[in-house]
This record gives sequence, structure tokens and C-alpha cells, in this order.
Amino acid sequence: MTLESTLAAIRPADAGAAAAARDLQTRLTKPAGSLGDLEELSIRLAGLAGVCPPPMPEPATVAVFAGDHGVHAQGVTPWPQEVTGQMVANFLAGGAVVNAFARQAGAGVLVVDVGVAAPTVEGANLLAANVRRGTADMTEEAAMTVAEARAAIEVGIGVAEAQAAAGVRCLLTGDMGIANTTPAAALIAAFTGADPAEVTGRGTGVDDDTLAHKVSVVAAALRRHAPDPAQPLATLAAVGGLEHAALAGFILGAAAHRLPVVVDGVIAASAALVAAALAPDAVDAMVAGHRSAEPGATVALAHLGLTPLIDLGMRLGEGSGAVLAQPIVAAAVRVLHDVATFDAAGVSEK
Amino acid sequence: MTLESTLAAIRPADAGAAAAARDLQTRLTKPAGSLGDLEELSIRLAGLAGVCPPPMPEPATVAVFAGDHGVHAQGVTPWPQEVTGQMVANFLAGGAVVNAFARQAGAGVLVVDVGVAAPTVEGANLLAANVRRGTADMTEEAAMTVAEARAAIEVGIGVAEAQAAAGVRCLLTGDMGIANTTPAAALIAAFTGADPAEVTGRGTGVDDDTLAHKVSVVAAALRRHAPDPAQPLATLAAVGGLEHAALAGFILGAAAHRLPVVVDGVIAASAALVAAALAPDAVDAMVAGHRSAEPGATVALAHLGLTPLIDLGMRLGEGSGAVLAQPIVAAAVRVLHDVATFDAAGVSEK
Repeated sequence: MTLESTLAAIRPADAGAAAAARDLQTRLTKPAGSLGDLEELSIRLAGLAGVCPPPMPEPATVAVFAGDHGVHAQGVTPWPQEVTGQMVANFLAGGAVVNAFARQAGAGVLVVDVGVAAPTVEGANLLAANVRRGTADMTEEAAMTVAEARAAIEVGIGVAEAQAAAGVRCLLTGDMGIANTTPAAALIAAFTGADPAEVTGRGTGVDDDTLAHKVSVVAAALRRHAPDPAQPLATLAAVGGLEHAALAGFILGAAAHRLPVVVDGVIAASAALVAAALAPDAVDAMVAGHRSAEPGATVALAHLGLTPLIDLGMRLGEGSGAVLAQPIVAAAVRVLHDVATFDAAGVSEK
Repeated sequence: MTLESTLAAIRPADAGAAAAARDLQTRLTKPAGSLGDLEELSIRLAGLAGVCPPPMPEPATVAVFAGDHGVHAQGVTPWPQEVTGQMVANFLAGGAVVNAFARQAGAGVLVVDVGVAAPTVEGANLLAANVRRGTADMTEEAAMTVAEARAAIEVGIGVAEAQAAAGVRCLLTGDMGIANTTPAAALIAAFTGADPAEVTGRGTGVDDDTLAHKVSVVAAALRRHAPDPAQPLATLAAVGGLEHAALAGFILGAAAHRLPVVVDGVIAASAALVAAALAPDAVDAMVAGHRSAEPGATVALAHLGLTPLIDLGMRLGEGSGAVLAQPIVAAAVRVLHDVATFDAAGVSEK
């Protein structure tokens, strides 16, 4: 699907199905409200699916979109750029944290080269869809052209579409890209209006000097491009990344197919802002997997009105927080499928 | 095993295995510290098991200990006492939330009648181990005798022992007992020194008047018995419950077998205080599954030095929060088993 046809397919949540789920929650054998945030989650997912109970969100697939970043040249991270491609190989070999978590959750792992600088190795679960071998340095020029941003978005849409066609019922966002928290911070500042210092974090764990420099790099990019959040594609092209663009498309594709998409950390949250700017109703498909230690993630989730399921101080990326949260999403939905009502179970009410 | 032999079997964590896990975490292909609290959890569980990596915490079983409470007569809850037995039947039929969550997590469910007032129905996964058909009203006399408390503890020890012998590698605490948040609050106040108003909560969702009355009932029981936390069995007998006692034994049994035990909500947390008072090293086996909405749970976990994995405003009990957390515990341990080191994966370091 093209970006335009995807946007046209995104519809508001179904209020009737949500109301049916809200009513059912009051009749199940448990005190009303006793499942806390999981009750609201189940109601949102019924509204998304347009039916109560909504389909179980399984099987699930984490799509790990990988890209490189011209802004790496500005010294925003101590890690060499070659690590992006090395970690892609690690994902394909099954040796990274996202693989371990996916094995635990029973989720599939798909790696998508949408913008890695070095050629990536082949592998059964690699999708070669490189739009450009890394972005340009956003402090000197636009990170990519609008045409490239659109192409990367459509890579993500295509992945969502293929997963939906294969029967996958829950999409999990993943990312890999050395330096990619820098464009994420720039996108979050651009779309929320927050100060760069408020949304720029330590990424993989940079020291105080590098953090201060990183803030100044984000601020410089924003000064150069003065991105207009009412022009989401131009903003994405100016200060984004190829994996951020693909993730925005992946999220839009999930919304178009009315599938829940679990948003991982700061990279996915910045992409979710792009998706929401393009299609506000796409937020109904988003589930915040966890609260990343990156400050920008919290700012972005608050802007989207999303409450994360897990808050463990994680800051790895790869989709790790989304995969970790998927069983919780499934448990929330399973309540609507499996739990007996007071009437059916012969349990007295208060 | 008797209580005494169980206490004698509980040993401190193995510092060498914990140190090996701490070192391994720095060599895995991820930025150091990027898995947040999950890294510390994996290190604790290596120390508990005495080996790095520790065994995977699966299969898991949730043991739902059910009991009734004489203090129900004081009007601390709007739910009729008969609901305890009705919910036991619901658990056996597979229709409760804990069943749905266990199905999702692949965990077993064992229901233990340790103190239900009405005779419970039979079922393949019911253990009939009734010590007494509900406690006495703790505002008028001791809830049970010390001999009954000990017997209930040994029921819990026996369950842990049988699960360990059957190859279960993670124990999950569950409970059912109308009015059981009232003795839980009394135990937490007794063992932490907190004020009854600070640790008494709304349970299934009582109104303001009932909450104020519940606080006064907890305070009255504490005034009558003046329990000494240095005498854990007498304190448990005076203001506890039969399922609280059994859970304390279940936790002690887990520690004696060096198995992780995931502590659910306020009932389990109050039982964990009893277990820690009897054997301080038992805390090394405890994993806090979630932060219950009940205020006493947070006070108890802080007293034990435990940080919960999940915080979703849940207040159901049954073991729901422990079962929901088990896949996260498994993911934390799986990292030590499955993730490649920088050397092995050929990934550059910063």
C-alpha cells in the first residue's frame, strides 16, 4: 500500500465494541476495576478491532528496522558506526537480547535493512529494503529527501501488510542504528515543542560532556531546519532517520489493518509522533510497551496520551521493551475471552 | 519438611555466582546497564541458585491458598464469605483471572484449601489441606492457635517441596479469602511498625466509611494482641490468616529449595514479612511481581528491600500479579543463557 492509501484506511476506534468490552469487564468474576490499567487496555483493543472480545494479539512479530546516521560524524556516541551492521548479523544469528526475549514470548523476529551504511549479510529473516546507505548529517543538510522518507515509510507499511497477511495479530516495533537516539530527540522536540535539553538522553550511556554536546547537536539541527510539525514528512526528512521513517510506516500499517502495535522505546516513540501527525487516529492502535530511561520517550508518550505497561529503567532498544510487554497485552485480552461471568460461575456479588 | 528443618536449610545467596552473573552482564552484546532492573534480577537469581547462569525459572506453578476469616463478622467488606468457596470452584473450573493469566504464561494452577469455611468441591488440581474452617475474629481472640499457624505454614512448605520435586523451577504465590486484606494489613503494621491507617486499603474497593471502619478494626486487633514482631509465629497466630501462614511456608520452602518465588500482592507481601522474620535469608528467593494498589503492599515491599516488576494499579489477588510477572523473570534469566558476548558475536565495543 502507498502512504496515501494507508492513511485513507485508518479509521477511528469503534465506540460500540469498546462499550461492550467496558460492560463485560464489570460482569467478570473479579472486583470491578481490580485489573487496573489492563482493563482500559482491553477496552481500547476492542475498540481498535471493532469487536468484543478483540482477537488474541498473537502470534506476534518484532520487526527490527536498521539504519545508520550521518550525524554520527558529530561525535554523539562513542560506538563505531560499524556496530549497526554487526548487530544486524547478531540478530540474524539469534544472539541479541531481542532474540532472547522473542524466544521467551514466542514472537517472530524480522530484521529489515532500511538504511544500514555497510552491506548487510543475507539471512532467512532479513528483509533487504535499503533506501539509502545511511542518512546525511542533519546538522549540515536534510537527513534525507522527502522522497526517501516516503520510500522508507512505505517499507514499514509493506512489512505491516505482509505480517497481517501472514496471520500475525500483534506488531512489535524494533530498531537498530548507532546514533539513532539523536534524530529521535530532534523529532520529539520538533513534534512536541519540547526543549532539546529536555528530550535528549544518554542513549547507550554517554558521559556528561558527550550528553551536553549531543544536546547542542540536536539544537543545531533544529535551528538549521526549523521543522514545521504541521509538515510531518518534511520534518521527518530534515531531522529523522530511515528506521524512524520505516517505523512510522509500520505503525500506520498496523493502524490501517486494525492491529495493535506495541511501541518500544525512544526511537519508536519518536516514530509514533510522526505517525500520529500523519493520522491522528493511528494512536488507537498504539500500545506503549515500556517507559525507556531516555527522557524523550516519556515526553513523546505523554504527548500521545499513552501510559507504558513496564517501567524497569531499560534503554536498550532493538524492540526489547515491546517484546517484553507483549505477554501482558495478551493477558489483558485473554481476560475478555476466558474469564467467567458472575452469573455463569455462580459466584455471589457484593 | 518441618518448619524447623526448612529454616535450617535456608542459606545466604552465593556471592561467587552473583559476581559471575554481574561480570557476564558486562560482556553481553548490549550497552552495560541497558536492561535496567532486569540485570540486577538476573544477578540475584544467580546468587540464589548458586550457579551462573541460574536455571530457567520454568515451568512455573501458581499455588492459590484459600482461607476464610472470622474478622469478616466485623463488616470489613461488602462481599459475603461464601464467595471464597465459590471462587475456589471457579479456579478449579478454569474460569478466574488467575487461570486466564496462567494459560497465557504456560504456568500450572494448584488450589490449596488451607482454611476455607465451607467444604470445598473436589477437583484434579485441588489440594485439600484444611487446617481449620476459617480463623476466629482477631478483634475478640487470637485468629488461630500457634499450633494451627505452624500446621498451615507446613502445608505451604509441603506444597513448595512437592512442586520442586516435580521439576517446577519457579513458584508463584496466589491467595483467595474474602476479608483477607484486613489480617494482611494487621501483619504489615505488626512487622513494619507502620500505622494501621497507612497500610489498610480498600481491598476489593470498599467505600470511605467501610475503609475508616476497617482501619479501626485493624487497630483494635493490634491493641488487643500487642503482637511482638520478634515472635513471628505468635504474631501470625494472633492477627494473621490461614492462607497468610501457608504462603509464608510456601515462600520458606522455595528459599530452602533455592527456587525463586514471585510475590503477588498485599496478602503475599504480608506473608513474606512473616517468612523474612523467621529466616532473613529467605528474602534472597523473593521476587516482587507487581506493586498492588493496596498501600500495605508498598510498605511491606519497601521493608523487604524489594522493587516490583510491574505497576499497573492491579488489586485482584489470586496470584494474578505474580503470574503476569513470571515471563519477565524468565526473560531476565534467559539473557544470561542466550545472548552472545561481544567476542563471540564479533561486535565492536565502544
